[in-house]
Amino acid sequence: MKKHSYRAVEAFRGADKTIRIVGHRGARGVFPENTMIGFKSTIEMGINLLEFDVVLCADGVPVITHNHALHVPTFKHVGGDFIDHEPKVLDLTWSQLQCFEVGRLDSSTQYGQRFPDQLQFAGIKVPKLDELLGHVANLSENNVYLMLEIKSDPNHVNNDIFRKKLVSEVTKRVRHFDLINQTLLHSFDWRILEECKSSAPDFPTSFLTQINHNPADVGEDSSLSVGPNIKNYGDHIPDKVFEKGGSLWCPNVQDITPTGLKRAKNLGLVTAVWTVNTVEEIDRMIEYGVDAIVTDYPGRVQQRLAVNGYNW
Amino acid sequence: MKKHSYRAVEAFRGADKTIRIVGHRGARGVFPENTMIGFKSTIEMGINLLEFDVVLCADGVPVITHNHALHVPTFKHVGGDFIDHEPKVLDLTWSQLQCFEVGRLDSSTQYGQRFPDQLQFAGIKVPKLDELLGHVANLSENNVYLMLEIKSDPNHVNNDIFRKKLVSEVTKRVRHFDLINQTLLHSFDWRILEECKSSAPDFPTSFLTQINHNPADVGEDSSLSVGPNIKNYGDHIPDKVFEKGGSLWCPNVQDITPTGLKRAKNLGLVTAVWTVNTVEEIDRMIEYGVDAIVTDYPGRVQQRLAVNGYNW
Repeated sequence: MKKHSYRAVEAFRGADKTIRIVGHRGARGVFPENTMIGFKSTIEMGINLLEFDVVLCADGVPVITHNHALHVPTFKHVGGDFIDHEPKVLDLTWSQLQCFEVGRLDSSTQYGQRFPDQLQFAGIKVPKLDELLGHVANLSENNVYLMLEIKSDPNHVNNDIFRKKLVSEVTKRVRHFDLINQTLLHSFDWRILEECKSSAPDFPTSFLTQINHNPADVGEDSSLSVGPNIKNYGDHIPDKVFEKGGSLWCPNVQDITPTGLKRAKNLGLVTAVWTVNTVEEIDRMIEYGVDAIVTDYPGRVQQRLAVNGYNW
Repeated sequence: MKKHSYRAVEAFRGADKTIRIVGHRGARGVFPENTMIGFKSTIEMGINLLEFDVVLCADGVPVITHNHALHVPTFKHVGGDFIDHEPKVLDLTWSQLQCFEVGRLDSSTQYGQRFPDQLQFAGIKVPKLDELLGHVANLSENNVYLMLEIKSDPNHVNNDIFRKKLVSEVTKRVRHFDLINQTLLHSFDWRILEECKSSAPDFPTSFLTQINHNPADVGEDSSLSVGPNIKNYGDHIPDKVFEKGGSLWCPNVQDITPTGLKRAKNLGLVTAVWTVNTVEEIDRMIEYGVDAIVTDYPGRVQQRLAVNGYNW
C-alpha cells in the first residue's frame, strides 16, 4: 500500500530521537495568535512548522483567524475597547474587517488568562491568507511548512456549494504562491478533506480528531459540530484516516494512545498531536514517540526534548 | 536642582497610567539571553528598552554576556555538549570565544529550570557590543534605548587602569555608532559610574542597587562584591545616587519601598526596578507606581499593565 510521498508530509514526520515541533496559531503562548507579527517571529526563532486557521469573509477573501465569529477576548475596535459582541467573519467584508484590531488579549477573561505571557502588539489586523503565503514564498529557503486548517462553519456543514467554494478559494491562493509542496490541508471536517482529495488531489490532507472535548476549548467552535462521529472507532481512527486518503492523523492530546499511534505508524501516517502545552503532556508525547507536537509553547517543548536527548 | 536632561533617561520615565517595560538580557524568559536573535526579536515585538551586559575579552573587544566567566548552563562547545568548566571571558580572545555557542539552556540545571519556556536557538555566538549597536543604529526609527550594564570584575575592582580602559572601550563603541542619546551607562559598581561621569559626562548613568541578595542569583556574580555598602542607607539610597550625579536608580525588586520611590521621584530620578517576573511582583510595582519594570517576561508585564488600565 505504498502511497504518494509529499514533501510537506515528510517535514512533519519524526525520526530516531527526533520529534517535530509545530507552532499552534503561530505560537499562541508567546506571540499574538494568528497574526503576521506572530508568524514572522515564530519563523525567525527557527520554528518552521506553523499551524493556523482559515475562514472566508463576506467577499470570499480567505483570512487567518480561529473562530467563525470575531472572538471577544482577542478583537478590539480600532483604537478602542475589546468588542462586546461577535459578528461572523462570513458576514463582514474584508473592508469591514479593517475596523477591528487583533494582537492583544483581554487578560481579564478566562481565555486571556490561559496565555499570561503572550506578548502584546497594537495596531494590527487579521491577516489575509495571502499575507502569510507571500511571506513564506519570499523566504530565502523553502523550509517553512504550513498546517493550514480549513475551518468548517457548522451552519454550512451540509452545503456542498459552500464547501467547494471554500476549498477552491484556499487551494487557489496556495497554488498562486507556488506553495503546494509546503502545505497540508488540515480540518476537523472530513467532508472538507474529501472535497480536497477530489478537487485538489495534489495536496496532502491532515485529519484532525477529538473524542474527549476539552472544556477549555468550548466557545472556540472547534470540532464539536463538524467532524464525523468517531467515538466508536477506538484505536481504529488511523485506519479510517488512511482509508480516506489522509497523510497525517492529528489526534487531540487527551485521546492519543500507544496502540492508536502504533496503528498509524504501521499505516505510514504521520501523527501530529495537538495541543500539547503542559510539561506532563509533552513528556508523555516524547515517551509515546509521536511524530510531531503541536504546541502554543515551542520553547517549552524544545527544552523537554533536549533534556530527554531528542532533537526537533 | 535642575539637572541636565537626557533623551535616553526620559525614555525610561513613566507617566500618568504609564509604566515602561525593559527587556532583561533581551527578554530571557522568552528568547535566548544576551543574543542577537533575542535582541532582534524583542525589538520586533515592540519592546524598545533593552537591558544587557558587557564585559571585555582578552583582546579588549567588548562582548555581550552576563558573567565574567562562561556560564555552564548557557554555553556549549560548538556542535557539542554544554561546557563543564568556566574559563574567564577576560582570558579568552575574541577568536577563542568563537569555539563556544550560546542560545540554548541546559534545562537539567537549576538555572535552566528558571526559564522553562525560553525558545532555543542553535549555532549562534556571543555577540560583540558592536553587533547590537550596529543593529540599533540601522533601525528606521531612533526609538530603541539601551540600558548597557558595564560588568565590574571583582578581581579588578581596585584597578584604576582597568576601570578606565573598560569605560573607554565601551563609550568609544557607543560614540562610534552615534548612540549616545539612546544609551544609559548602568552598573552595580559606583566607581565605574564615577569614571563614566568623569571621562564620558555626556552619557547618563544608571545606578544598580541590591540590599537583599537573591539566592537565585548566587553564581551569577552580580552585585555581591563590586557595589558600595548601601545597607545602612535605608530609604536614602536615591539621595546617594543623586549626589553621585545619577539619572536612574535601579533597585532590586526585593528592596524597593514606597518611601524610597517617593524620595527618588522628588529628586527627579527615574526608578527602574529589576528583575520583576512574578505576577505578584509586577502588580506590586504597578501599585507603587515605579517608572519602569525590568523583566524577563515583557508579555506578562504588558498583560498586567493592561488589565490594571496602564499603558507602557
